[in-house]
Amino acid sequence: MPAETDPRFLRSREAILHAARELLLEKGPAAVTHAPVAERAGVGRATVYRHWPRPELLLVEAMATVPMPFFAEPTVPTRDWLRRELTAMAHQLDLDDVRAVATTLANTALWDEHMEARRAQFAGVLSERVTAALDDAQHRGELTLAIPGRNAAAALIGPLYYRSTIEHSPADPGLIESAIAALGSWSTD
Amino acid sequence: MPAETDPRFLRSREAILHAARELLLEKGPAAVTHAPVAERAGVGRATVYRHWPRPELLLVEAMATVPMPFFAEPTVPTRDWLRRELTAMAHQLDLDDVRAVATTLANTALWDEHMEARRAQFAGVLSERVTAALDDAQHRGELTLAIPGRNAAAALIGPLYYRSTIEHSPADPGLIESAIAALGSWSTD
Repeated sequence: MPAETDPRFLRSREAILHAARELLLEKGPAAVTHAPVAERAGVGRATVYRHWPRPELLLVEAMATVPMPFFAEPTVPTRDWLRRELTAMAHQLDLDDVRAVATTLANTALWDEHMEARRAQFAGVLSERVTAALDDAQHRGELTLAIPGRNAAAALIGPLYYRSTIEHSPADPGLIESAIAALGSWSTD
Repeated sequence: MPAETDPRFLRSREAILHAARELLLEKGPAAVTHAPVAERAGVGRATVYRHWPRPELLLVEAMATVPMPFFAEPTVPTRDWLRRELTAMAHQLDLDDVRAVATTLANTALWDEHMEARRAQFAGVLSERVTAALDDAQHRGELTLAIPGRNAAAALIGPLYYRSTIEHSPADPGLIESAIAALGSWSTD
């Protein structure tokens, strides 16, 4: 195994990540597997395996290099925006590849420092985005929060994540509506 | 590697699982690791590794052989019982070993049929127990459910599971209260 400072190793690593990112953006998470990534990166499949023995680890890395798509651009009313974002997230979490990434990230973060950093980044971005949008909704009088902002991401995303990774079933709209309602009193109630 | 039908292999497997189950019940999930399990089972440590290369896989198996402790014996009022059970679950999910088991189960279930059966069993038992207790609360007039019973486990447990495995933080009582409130109208409101 080459040293991680070997320039050829680092170059192939960069090329592979670049190819993985392109495939992710063009074709979605299911496309980020060893063979197509190797082909696009112009390296042998064995090289991809050497860097990332499991495709979901490569997918986690590739995802970390593209902007996180969820809760990225808040619109008003916040309630409709939350419903749309959570619905999009539920659809993603119903794909086996995304389920694999989510559970691999949660699992490998427990003993891999690099993955732990990805997990913390992922959780932090989600929480900040949700909290900022809810603060704005409060200021506009659309929402009176019944829970502290720091609990909002877990209250909204937790049920969808459990439904996907523990119950292995698609989220239904009712699960999303009840999570949104649990945040507090909405002016549209 | 011995065939899985080799009687010696099956005997050592049984002895290891028995020891793991005893340690789990006596000392909790943190005690179920290779060395103490091997000692108690009277087998070499290498034998435990051969059957279960990772301790959390052994722990998943051991957990599947003991009665699931959560939501096991409903008491009245249901709301207090839910609060107690969810608090106990949150404390468990704040232990690294339990976090490892939960995420390993969710992750390995995606490609291991045996673990997939454990996941389905685990999810099914939790959902049935929660649904039965909430049905009873409805009949007694303690609760008017605002969500279908099939969504109750995800609504209650999801936020704690996300807080533990994605946010890596302890659940606070507010997260539990808001999940319980989201189920519907409680007569004690």
